Amino acid sequence: MSKKLTKREEDYSKWYNELVVKADLAENSAVRGCMIIKPYGFAIWEKMKEELDKKFKATGHQNAYFPLFVPKSLFEAEEKNAEGFAKECAVVTHYRLKNNPDAPGKLMVDPAAKLEEELVVRPTSEAIIWNTYKNWIQSYRDLPILINQWANVVRWEMRTRLFLRTAEFLWQEGHTAHATEQEALDETLLINNLYADFVENFMAIPVIKGIKTESERFAGAEDTHCIEALMQDGKALQAGTSHFLGQNFAKAFDVKFATSEGGLDHVWATSWGVSTRLMGALIMTHSDDNGLVLPPNLAPIQVVIVPIYKGKEQLDEIAGIANKIKSELEKQGVSVKFDDRDNVKPGFKFNDYELKGVPLRIAIGPKDLEKQQVELARRDTLEKSFVPQDQLSSLIPSLLEEIQQTLFAKALRFRDEHITAVDSFEEFKKVLEDKGGFIAAHWDGTAATEEAIKQATKATIRCIPYTAKEEEGSCVFSGNKSTKRVLFAKAY
Amino acid sequence: MSKKLTKREEDYSKWYNELVVKADLAENSAVRGCMIIKPYGFAIWEKMKEELDKKFKATGHQNAYFPLFVPKSLFEAEEKNAEGFAKECAVVTHYRLKNNPDAPGKLMVDPAAKLEEELVVRPTSEAIIWNTYKNWIQSYRDLPILINQWANVVRWEMRTRLFLRTAEFLWQEGHTAHATEQEALDETLLINNLYADFVENFMAIPVIKGIKTESERFAGAEDTHCIEALMQDGKALQAGTSHFLGQNFAKAFDVKFATSEGGLDHVWATSWGVSTRLMGALIMTHSDDNGLVLPPNLAPIQVVIVPIYKGKEQLDEIAGIANKIKSELEKQGVSVKFDDRDNVKPGFKFNDYELKGVPLRIAIGPKDLEKQQVELARRDTLEKSFVPQDQLSSLIPSLLEEIQQTLFAKALRFRDEHITAVDSFEEFKKVLEDKGGFIAAHWDGTAATEEAIKQATKATIRCIPYTAKEEEGSCVFSGNKSTKRVLFAKAY
Repeated sequence: MSKKLTKREEDYSKWYNELVVKADLAENSAVRGCMIIKPYGFAIWEKMKEELDKKFKATGHQNAYFPLFVPKSLFEAEEKNAEGFAKECAVVTHYRLKNNPDAPGKLMVDPAAKLEEELVVRPTSEAIIWNTYKNWIQSYRDLPILINQWANVVRWEMRTRLFLRTAEFLWQEGHTAHATEQEALDETLLINNLYADFVENFMAIPVIKGIKTESERFAGAEDTHCIEALMQDGKALQAGTSHFLGQNFAKAFDVKFATSEGGLDHVWATSWGVSTRLMGALIMTHSDDNGLVLPPNLAPIQVVIVPIYKGKEQLDEIAGIANKIKSELEKQGVSVKFDDRDNVKPGFKFNDYELKGVPLRIAIGPKDLEKQQVELARRDTLEKSFVPQDQLSSLIPSLLEEIQQTLFAKALRFRDEHITAVDSFEEFKKVLEDKGGFIAAHWDGTAATEEAIKQATKATIRCIPYTAKEEEGSCVFSGNKSTKRVLFAKAY
Repeated sequence: MSKKLTKREEDYSKWYNELVVKADLAENSAVRGCMIIKPYGFAIWEKMKEELDKKFKATGHQNAYFPLFVPKSLFEAEEKNAEGFAKECAVVTHYRLKNNPDAPGKLMVDPAAKLEEELVVRPTSEAIIWNTYKNWIQSYRDLPILINQWANVVRWEMRTRLFLRTAEFLWQEGHTAHATEQEALDETLLINNLYADFVENFMAIPVIKGIKTESERFAGAEDTHCIEALMQDGKALQAGTSHFLGQNFAKAFDVKFATSEGGLDHVWATSWGVSTRLMGALIMTHSDDNGLVLPPNLAPIQVVIVPIYKGKEQLDEIAGIANKIKSELEKQGVSVKFDDRDNVKPGFKFNDYELKGVPLRIAIGPKDLEKQQVELARRDTLEKSFVPQDQLSSLIPSLLEEIQQTLFAKALRFRDEHITAVDSFEEFKKVLEDKGGFIAAHWDGTAATEEAIKQATKATIRCIPYTAKEEEGSCVFSGNKSTKRVLFAKAY
C-alpha cells in the first residue's frame, strides 16, 4: 500500500490532493465537482459543527430549516444577489422520469412533467428566507430574528478541488433580522469575532479580521466582514464571512415592520457563513510531508495505542495495560483507540496514523513491558520519548493542550513572518513572487486599481484589516493618496 | 391572537394542520410541497437526531456525506429501485441562468448550459453510495462498512402535508455492506430494534415491529422491516424502515469482494431510515385539543416559569425566586425558561406554552410568595397543584420522568385497545369503519387479495408482526388457507 505523499515543495497542490484522499478525508464522486466526505473527514467536520453550534446558541441563535429549492421569481428579486449567483445555478426543470421507449431498462426525463416555474437549487438562502421573514415580521416585537441553518448548497463551479471549491458543499448560514441599523452592524461584527475566536482557538488557525472591498463583497451586501487565513504555500484563504445586508433584502421582499415609535420601516439584515472549506484551511495550515496534522480539539482519535508483540500471550499482556491506559484517559475526555489488528504490522499502523494526523501515538513492546514504560510520539513535532506508564494519565491531557497551543503558535509565527509591508509596485511583485503571503500596501481605494493589480499579479485585496492604522501614504500602483494599508495576496 | 384550535373530533386533519402551524413547528413555503421547519420544531428534531446519532455510533456506525445529485445513468442501474422512484424525481437539467433579453431584470435558464447527463436530486442514496462502495471494497477485510448519512432528500409528492409527506424532507439513511447474508440480516434486525427502542423509550410512542409484504416493500429490497405506530384517529403511521437489500445493489453496481476462503462474491447490503415524518407521529400520538403535548425527552423547554405580578417590585421578588428554582433545576439537566416578558399577560403565556406542549408550568403570584409555594401544572393531565418552593428541585426531575412514562403508557393502552382480531370480511369492514386501528386478520399471502382489500377498504397490510403466532386460519377475504394473522390498517 503506497501511502507516500508528494512533498509539499515539489508540488503543493498535488500534495494537498493526495493527502485529502489518502488520509481518508474525502474523494471525488461520479457527479462532476461533487465530493464524498468520508467517515474520517466527516468526523472532523462534525467536531467543527458541534463547537460552532454551541457558540451560535450561546449567543442567542436558533436553528431552523428552509427549502433546498428557490423558485426563479424569488431568486431574481434581489437583483445584485441574483446577478452574483446566476452563472453557477443548478436548475430543476422537471419533476418526473419515465421509461425510455427507445431504450428498454433506461429512463428519460418526462417532457410532460415540466415545471411551470424553474427551481434553483439554493446557492445561498437569502431569497427563500427573506420571502419567509416577510410573513413573520409585522412589528418591532417580532425582532430580532436570529436564525442559523446547517445545509448543503450548490454553486456550479467549473474548476473544483476537494473541500476548497466544490459544486455542492456543506455549510451553515445565519440569517438575522433587526429593527435598527446599529443592531445589524453589531450582529455582523459579533459573528465575525465569533468566527475568529472559533478558527483561532479551536482550529489553531490564526486569522486576520477585516472588511472586504466593494469588488470582493458578497452580492447583495452593503459590507462583508471576513476572516482571512494564510496557507503554508503563501496563499490566503477566506475562512468565513459575515455580511451586513442593510435593507437590501427587506426592500426586495417588501419586509416592513411597525417601529416602537409608531412608524413603518424596512428591516435590517445580516447573513454569515462558514463551510466545509474550513477543512481545506485546516489541512493547509498544519499538515506536513508525512500527512495530516490535527489540532487535538479536532482529532477524532487523539491518542492511538499500537502494540508491538510476538504471539498471543504478549499481545494479551500489552492489551491489559493498553486498556487500562485507555480507560483512564477516556475518563478525562480523551479519545483513545487501541489498534490490536493482527493482520497489519506496527510499521503500517505507524504510517497510517501519521498520515491521519493522530496527535499522540503510544507504542508498547516487550521491553516496555519490562520497564513499565511506553514510547510516546508527538505527531506535530515527530518527537519520541519514553514515559512511565503510571504517568500517562496525568501527562497526556496537558500534552494535548500543549500541542494545540504549539500548532497555533507555529502557524501564527509563519503567518506573521509572511505579512510584508511594501511601498512600491516593484517590491510588491517581487515579494509576491519570491515570498508570497500577505502584502500590506497602500491602495487608492478605487476598483480600477484593484482590478489592474489583479490582472498584473493575480493578487487581490483580501481585506482592510480592523487594525489597519491611519497613516498617510501613496498607492503602490497609482501613486494616489491613501490613508491606510490593505492586505493583498493570491488566494484560494 | 386566535390560537384556538379546531377540535380533534370535529376534523382531525384540520386540527393537525393548525397545530403544526400555531405551535410554531413548521409551515408551508413558497416552493410547492416543501416545508419550513421553524426554530421550535427544529429544536425537537435536533433532540431526536442527537439521540439517534448516539445510538448509531454506539453500535459501530459512522457518519459520512454523499452527493445530493445522482447522474441518471447511475440512478437507473438498479431497475426496481429506479422504477420505484422515477415518478417522483426532481431533475436538474441546466447549470446556469442568464439575463432574459425580453424582460429586463429577469432571469431565464440558459439553453447553452444544458447538462450532458441529467442529474436526479436524490430521493434516496443507494445508487450513488453503491457506485462509491464499488471502489472501497476489494476484500473481506474491507467489510463491514457501516455508514449513516444525515441529509435532505426530495420525492416529488402530489399531495403533501407538513412533516407527513413533503417534497423535500430531512432524514438519516444508513447504508451498510457485509460479507455474508447472515450479517446483513442481523444488521437489518439490529436497526429495526434500535428504531423501536428509540421511538418507544425516547419518543414515548409504542410501535409494532414487523415485516412488510412484497407489495409494500422498499423498491430494490429483498425484505423491509418496519415499525408501525398508531395515531389517535385510528390510522397507522410507518415510523421507520430497515431494508435487507440482499445482493441486488452489489449486482447492479458490480461490487464483488475476495472472500476469506479465496473466492469472489457479491457484497450483501442493508439500508434504513427515519425522517422528519417522526415529527408527525409525535404530534398525532400525544397531543390534545389544547395543542402539542411533548414527552419531556423531546421538549426544548421542559419547565416554564410564569410570574403573576403587579408592579416592578413584585416582579423583582418573584424573579429572585424563579431564578433560584431555574438554576437548581438546570444543575440537574432540566431545561427551564423564566418568561418575564412584560408586554403579554400571564393568560396569554399560559395558552402559548400549553399550545407548545411544555411539560410543566410553574406560576408564581403574590399569594405564592406569602406561602412560599408555587402553582405547578402538568401539560399531559392538565392537573394543577400547589408545591412548596423548596421541594421543586427534588420533585421535578422525577415528575418529568413520570410524565414520560405516563405518556407512553397512555399511548400503549390506546394502541392495544385498537388492535382488533376479526375473522370475517364483514367484521373487517365494520371495525375499520367504526373503530379504526389495527385489524389482525388472516390473509392468504397473495398480492391479489391484498390489493382487493385495499381497493375495497383503503386498508393496507402494515406488517407481519415479529410476534405473529402460527395458527391455522382462513383468509378474511378469499377464505384460502393462512398460517398467521397480519395487521391491516388505513395509514398515513
